Amino acid sequence: MAHLLSTCFYSKLSSGATSCSKPSTRCSVIYPTSLTLRISQSPIKKLISHREIPPRGRSTRRSNNIITAALPVSQEANTQPSNGSHLTSKDSSKRKRVMIIGGDGYCGWATALHLSKMDYEVAIVDNLVRRLFDHQLGLASLTPIASIHDRIRCWKSLTGKDIELYIGDICDFEFLTETFKSFEPDTVVHFGEQRSAPYSMIDRSRAVFTQHNNVIGTLNVLFAIKEFREDCHLVKLGTMGEYGTPNIDIEEGYITITHNGRADTLPYPKQGSSFYHLSKVHDSNNIAFTCKAWGIRATDLNQGVVYGVRTDETEMHEVLCNRLDYDAVFGTALNRFCVQAAVGHPLTVYGKGGQTRGYLDIRDTVQCVELAIANPAEPGEFRVFNQFTEQFSVNDLAALVTKAGEKIGLDVSTLSVPNPRVEAEEHYYNAKHTKLVELGLKPHILSDSLLDSLLNFAVQYKDRVDRKQIMPSVSWKKIGAKPKTVAA
Amino acid sequence: MAHLLSTCFYSKLSSGATSCSKPSTRCSVIYPTSLTLRISQSPIKKLISHREIPPRGRSTRRSNNIITAALPVSQEANTQPSNGSHLTSKDSSKRKRVMIIGGDGYCGWATALHLSKMDYEVAIVDNLVRRLFDHQLGLASLTPIASIHDRIRCWKSLTGKDIELYIGDICDFEFLTETFKSFEPDTVVHFGEQRSAPYSMIDRSRAVFTQHNNVIGTLNVLFAIKEFREDCHLVKLGTMGEYGTPNIDIEEGYITITHNGRADTLPYPKQGSSFYHLSKVHDSNNIAFTCKAWGIRATDLNQGVVYGVRTDETEMHEVLCNRLDYDAVFGTALNRFCVQAAVGHPLTVYGKGGQTRGYLDIRDTVQCVELAIANPAEPGEFRVFNQFTEQFSVNDLAALVTKAGEKIGLDVSTLSVPNPRVEAEEHYYNAKHTKLVELGLKPHILSDSLLDSLLNFAVQYKDRVDRKQIMPSVSWKKIGAKPKTVAA
Repeated sequence: MAHLLSTCFYSKLSSGATSCSKPSTRCSVIYPTSLTLRISQSPIKKLISHREIPPRGRSTRRSNNIITAALPVSQEANTQPSNGSHLTSKDSSKRKRVMIIGGDGYCGWATALHLSKMDYEVAIVDNLVRRLFDHQLGLASLTPIASIHDRIRCWKSLTGKDIELYIGDICDFEFLTETFKSFEPDTVVHFGEQRSAPYSMIDRSRAVFTQHNNVIGTLNVLFAIKEFREDCHLVKLGTMGEYGTPNIDIEEGYITITHNGRADTLPYPKQGSSFYHLSKVHDSNNIAFTCKAWGIRATDLNQGVVYGVRTDETEMHEVLCNRLDYDAVFGTALNRFCVQAAVGHPLTVYGKGGQTRGYLDIRDTVQCVELAIANPAEPGEFRVFNQFTEQFSVNDLAALVTKAGEKIGLDVSTLSVPNPRVEAEEHYYNAKHTKLVELGLKPHILSDSLLDSLLNFAVQYKDRVDRKQIMPSVSWKKIGAKPKTVAA
Repeated sequence: MAHLLSTCFYSKLSSGATSCSKPSTRCSVIYPTSLTLRISQSPIKKLISHREIPPRGRSTRRSNNIITAALPVSQEANTQPSNGSHLTSKDSSKRKRVMIIGGDGYCGWATALHLSKMDYEVAIVDNLVRRLFDHQLGLASLTPIASIHDRIRCWKSLTGKDIELYIGDICDFEFLTETFKSFEPDTVVHFGEQRSAPYSMIDRSRAVFTQHNNVIGTLNVLFAIKEFREDCHLVKLGTMGEYGTPNIDIEEGYITITHNGRADTLPYPKQGSSFYHLSKVHDSNNIAFTCKAWGIRATDLNQGVVYGVRTDETEMHEVLCNRLDYDAVFGTALNRFCVQAAVGHPLTVYGKGGQTRGYLDIRDTVQCVELAIANPAEPGEFRVFNQFTEQFSVNDLAALVTKAGEKIGLDVSTLSVPNPRVEAEEHYYNAKHTKLVELGLKPHILSDSLLDSLLNFAVQYKDRVDRKQIMPSVSWKKIGAKPKTVAA
C-alpha cells in the first residue's frame, strides 16, 4: 500500500488553509477539491462567551460544529445557541459524543478518525505539547505530519464529518470546564498524558512534569465528570507497564488472593518501572477510588506496545498521516527496529533482549477503544482491560525484523547495547488479555506481511531518518536533578 | 500529670524572644531563666552564601549551628565555615544527622525533640503551612502552641541542644538543595505532607494540592538524596490507610501470592480511600522504584492513627507543648472523642462505627522512628513497617472513652452521625505489626489510665474548645470542583 501515499500530496494555501487536492485511491467519499477555511485567532473563552451555555441534557444539544481555541472554521456561521429552539437538521442527539483528550497524538489521532468514521460525534482536546517535545529535543516523526487544524479540515473535506477542536491544557481546570460545558461528552477517551518512559527519566524536571501533568490532568478530568457529566464514561489509557514483570500470571486489573484461610479480590499489585509508568499507576489508583466514592464509570485500558502507523482512516490522505516515532525517547521497540532496518542501522537490542511485553497493531488500538465505548462500564465500576494481542521478547522482534528485512533485500544486523533502563532482561511473562476479545476484538496478528508493510513504509521515508536520534540517550541510573539541556 | 502543665507558662518578650522562665517539674536540665536571642531576617541564601559549602564527607562537617531561613539565632556568631580547619570542640562528626521534614507538625515536633534528646543532630525543615491551614479554615489546636522559633530556642535553653531550622517548601527544589548541601543529612525523616484525609476531600483545589504537594515533595526528596547524599536513609511516613480494608490479613508492605502454580512476593495491593491516602500510595510506589533503580535505602512507616499529645520531651516546658487537633478536618478519632467528652459533646461516631484501624500512642511514634533510624534499610532496600500497636473499632474507642469519662465524673453520650466518608463500616481487619517490635519497640498500651490522662488533659483545656469545629463538615460524596470558601 505504500505506493498510495506516494501519490498523495497536500498544498498549504497562503491563507493557511489546506486543499486536500488528491485523495488516496481508497478514499470513498466525495469531497471538494478546494476548501478554504476562515481563520480566527479568538481565544476559546471569547468564542464561547457569546453563546449561551446550554443547560444539561441531550435534547438541548447544539448541532455539530467545530469549536476551537485558535481555529473556528467557516461552519462557525451555523453556530446557534442550543436552547432547544435552534436544533438544526443536523441535530445529532442520538449520536454518542466522544471527547478525545490527546487526540493529536499517535494513538489519539488514529482513534479520533476511527470514531468519527464510525459516526460518533468527536471532539479533540489537546494542548499539542507532544509537538513541542519534538522541537525541544530535536526530534521529528519519520512521517511528515500536518497541523491538527489541517488534519481536521482535510477530514471534513474527505468525509463531510466535523471534528471539534479545543486547544488547551487539561491541567487548567477552567479550560477543561469550558470544554465539558461546550461539548457535553458522553465518553471521554483520555490519551492526554506524557507517554514516554525515557522522557520521564531525562531529568528531575521532566520526571516532575510527567507525574504532575498526568496525575493532575486525570484528577481534573475526574472532577469535570463528577461536576458536569456524571454519567459520562471515562476510557483511560493505562499501560501494561503498570504491572511490571511479576513471576506469576498477570490478570486484568484484579487478582483473587487466598491468604491465611481467607480470600479477597484485590487490585493487581503494580510495579511501575519509570516515573511515566508510575504516573499511570497513580492514575489507576485515583480513578478506582472515584468509581467507588462517586460512582464514576471507568475503563482502564492497560495497553501494550503499539506498532504500525496506518489505519483505514489515516491512509485516506497524506494530510491525515499519523506520526511514526523511531527515536530513543518516543520510539517504541518494533517501530524503531523497522526504521533501523530500513536505513541499515543495526537493531539496538537493550541488554540481553529477553524483555517480554504485550504488543498490538494500532488498528487494534482504535478497535479496542471503540469496543470500550460501545460497551461502557457500569456506574461505579472500575473496569480494567489488558489491551494487547500478542507477546514478544525484544529478541523475538529483532529476529522477525531480520527475517522480513531479508525478504525485501535488506541486510539487517543486531547490536546489543547496554540497557539504559533498570528492568529484568530474562523473566517470566504471561499476561491475560481476553476481555476485549470477548467484546468482539478481531486482532491483527503481527506477521511477515505486516512487517513487510511496516518495513516498506520505513524504507519509503528513510531519507527523513536522523540517525542521531536512534541510540539510547536517557539512562535510568544516571538521571540527574539538574535540568538536562539539548545541544544542537 | 496534667497539673504539671498548669504550672508552666512562657512570656513573650518585646523583642520577640522567649524566656523559658519556668520548667516543668520534670525538667531535668539546668537552663537560664532568661535567654535573649538576636533576631535576623536574613533569607537562607544570604546566610549560606557567606559560608563555604563544605565538601562532602563527615570530617569536614561544621559545628552544630542553628540555620534558619527567617531566624538565625544568637549562636550565629559561632558559625564558621566547615573547611576542616575550623572544627570546633562541638565537632559532632560521629553523631548521626537527621533532617526532619515537617518537624513543626504533630508527629514531627515530638520526633524532633526525641531525636535531639537521643543525641542525634537534628534539623527541622518545614514551610509551616499546617499553621496556615488552621488560619484559613478557622481552626486551632486545643493546646496553645508556640512558634517554631520559640520552641527551638526553649529547647536549646532547657537542654543546650541545637536544632537547626530551615523554613521553606520542599516542592521548591532549589530550597531543598540548599538544605541538603548545608545540613548533609544521614537520615531524612519525611513527615512533610498534607496529612488530613478530610482536607484532601474539601474541594478540587485541595485534592490537587494534596496530591501535588505530597507526590512532588517526595520526588524532590528522592532526587536530593540521589544527587547529594546517596547513602542517606529515607524514613518516610506512610499510612495504614494505604491498605484500605481488604478481606484478608494485611501484611507489612509485601505479600507472597501463589497463583496458577507459580509464586511471587509482590507489593501488597493498595486501596486508598481519600486523595490524601492515595497520595501516600503514590509515594510508596515512587519510592519503591527509586530503591530498585537508584539504590535508595528507604523505610516506609505505614502509621496507624496517633493519639495523645505528651512525650517526655514536649512536657518539659509549655513552650514545647505539642498541638492537639480535635476538629473534624485534622482531629483523629480518639483525640477528638476525648475533647468531645471533656466539653459534654456527644462522641460523634460516623455511621455504624465498625470501622477498625490500627492505633498508637505518640510516644510510640517517636520510638518507632528512632528505631528505624538506628537500624537503617540496606542500599536498594524498600522496607515497609506497619507502625501501630493495637487495633480498635470506632465503637470500641467510644466505649473506652465513655467508661474512662465516668471515672472522672463526665457524663459521656454517643451520637451516630451520617458517615461523611465512603468506607466499609463493618469489615474484617487484621494487620500485622511485628517488625518494629522485633527491632525493640516497647508499646504504650491504651488503657484506662492513658485515657484518663488524655481526658484530664482535654478537660484542662476545655475552655479553648470551639464546638463549631467538631461536627463533620467535609463529605466524600459532595466534594465539588469549585473552591470551597469558609464563612466567619
